[in-house]
Amino acid sequence: MTGSLAILGLGPGGPAQRTPEVDAALAGATDLIGYLPYVERIPPRPGLRRHPTDNRVELDRARHALSLAQSGARVAVVSGGDPGVFAMASAVFEAIDHGDPAWRALDIRVLPGISAMFAAAARIGAPLGHDFCALSLSDNLKPWPLVEQRLAAAATAGFVIALYNPISRARPWQLGAALDLLRQHLPGTVPVIFATAVTRPDERIAITDLAKAEASSADMRTLVMIGTAATRLVTRGEGVAPWVYAPRSVTA
Amino acid sequence: MTGSLAILGLGPGGPAQRTPEVDAALAGATDLIGYLPYVERIPPRPGLRRHPTDNRVELDRARHALSLAQSGARVAVVSGGDPGVFAMASAVFEAIDHGDPAWRALDIRVLPGISAMFAAAARIGAPLGHDFCALSLSDNLKPWPLVEQRLAAAATAGFVIALYNPISRARPWQLGAALDLLRQHLPGTVPVIFATAVTRPDERIAITDLAKAEASSADMRTLVMIGTAATRLVTRGEGVAPWVYAPRSVTA
Repeated sequence: MTGSLAILGLGPGGPAQRTPEVDAALAGATDLIGYLPYVERIPPRPGLRRHPTDNRVELDRARHALSLAQSGARVAVVSGGDPGVFAMASAVFEAIDHGDPAWRALDIRVLPGISAMFAAAARIGAPLGHDFCALSLSDNLKPWPLVEQRLAAAATAGFVIALYNPISRARPWQLGAALDLLRQHLPGTVPVIFATAVTRPDERIAITDLAKAEASSADMRTLVMIGTAATRLVTRGEGVAPWVYAPRSVTA
Repeated sequence: MTGSLAILGLGPGGPAQRTPEVDAALAGATDLIGYLPYVERIPPRPGLRRHPTDNRVELDRARHALSLAQSGARVAVVSGGDPGVFAMASAVFEAIDHGDPAWRALDIRVLPGISAMFAAAARIGAPLGHDFCALSLSDNLKPWPLVEQRLAAAATAGFVIALYNPISRARPWQLGAALDLLRQHLPGTVPVIFATAVTRPDERIAITDLAKAEASSADMRTLVMIGTAATRLVTRGEGVAPWVYAPRSVTA
């Protein structure tokens, strides 16, 4: 019996933003592995074993998935958004890199998904329509000074910035510090977007500017986007949120 | 009669990587607008008018789409990959920003797609698994010195770099210049990936390193990814391409 491992992106929320190839892999899986809220998105069915786990155990989860695949299971490792963006794909290849050499012969596929930042951007216009970067604010796996250096480099060079993992109970001050740092490099008028639980029933999107942006607008499910001095708002009248977009042309 | 405008992402290629909400919008459209190769991906059907256009006319195309929607059509503007990433969404909002104020009242939606960079990354592992940026090498709409400044900033700060629009007949030397510049800031051992026509029948993926990378490996349909000093290759034996991934942990 030959197992397989599919590392899947479920997209931001509902099945309307999930690709057919991901649905097919889910339908053929014998074992479902991932962080609890993602596993819970997939309805139970006979023949599908579910292995929800806590956050912050990515490597253990990856090794478990690889062992199951090695023993013949058809394993689906699920992430929200895209599995290659601050999610499980890196953890699986890291586990392979440092694990049982036999794992390198396994049938492993990565199936992309709609990432949180593109889903969030689509909700308000085209804020990532020019050069941009994606940066995790978590300092669990990299030193905070490196986060600061990257924020400064991105802002100074004119990249729109998408911030992943902006805040959590264990990391309460980092987003505030990041906004303070960005205020040193960018005008206060630069648009800032807090997009929370995008495409889900409790979706909440707030558009403000860097001068007024506050870390308390974000929670664990928020994607924060920081525009540039070129970012434009298109107003649409009373009570309707403006569109936000990055012009295609940039003058130096 | 009230028209609408959907700005759609078709994903990298086939329908297996296209979302159901995009398929639904295509099924309900009366008019299909976009760059010829993207329009050609959608089969003709009665009741669907097709308006393929040349490249480099994004603003004209956007205005045409808005006028049709204004006159009652259900318009689908199609892009490959994600419409918010160096594609039609920015052009549409730019046209609205500087166009007929009545366009601001139109029913406009952006429907995300699987971007070329995530499709390419998924084919070889998880090369974008840590902080990364997406940068267009085209100097049609921004000055070349700004491209150079952004490349240097991204490389120096340790972002993985995804290069869009690397080369074309009208821009033959830019990718070579970019690789030369990156060699000044990054070790020659940094992995470089040329991913061409990803998920399509003529898909071609080449993995090399910065010292050996040559612009001639790219064409108009290539996504180029430049790793960092931390990027790892996981070898898989003779004749099998290695996996490439960005480790989750970074030490300063």
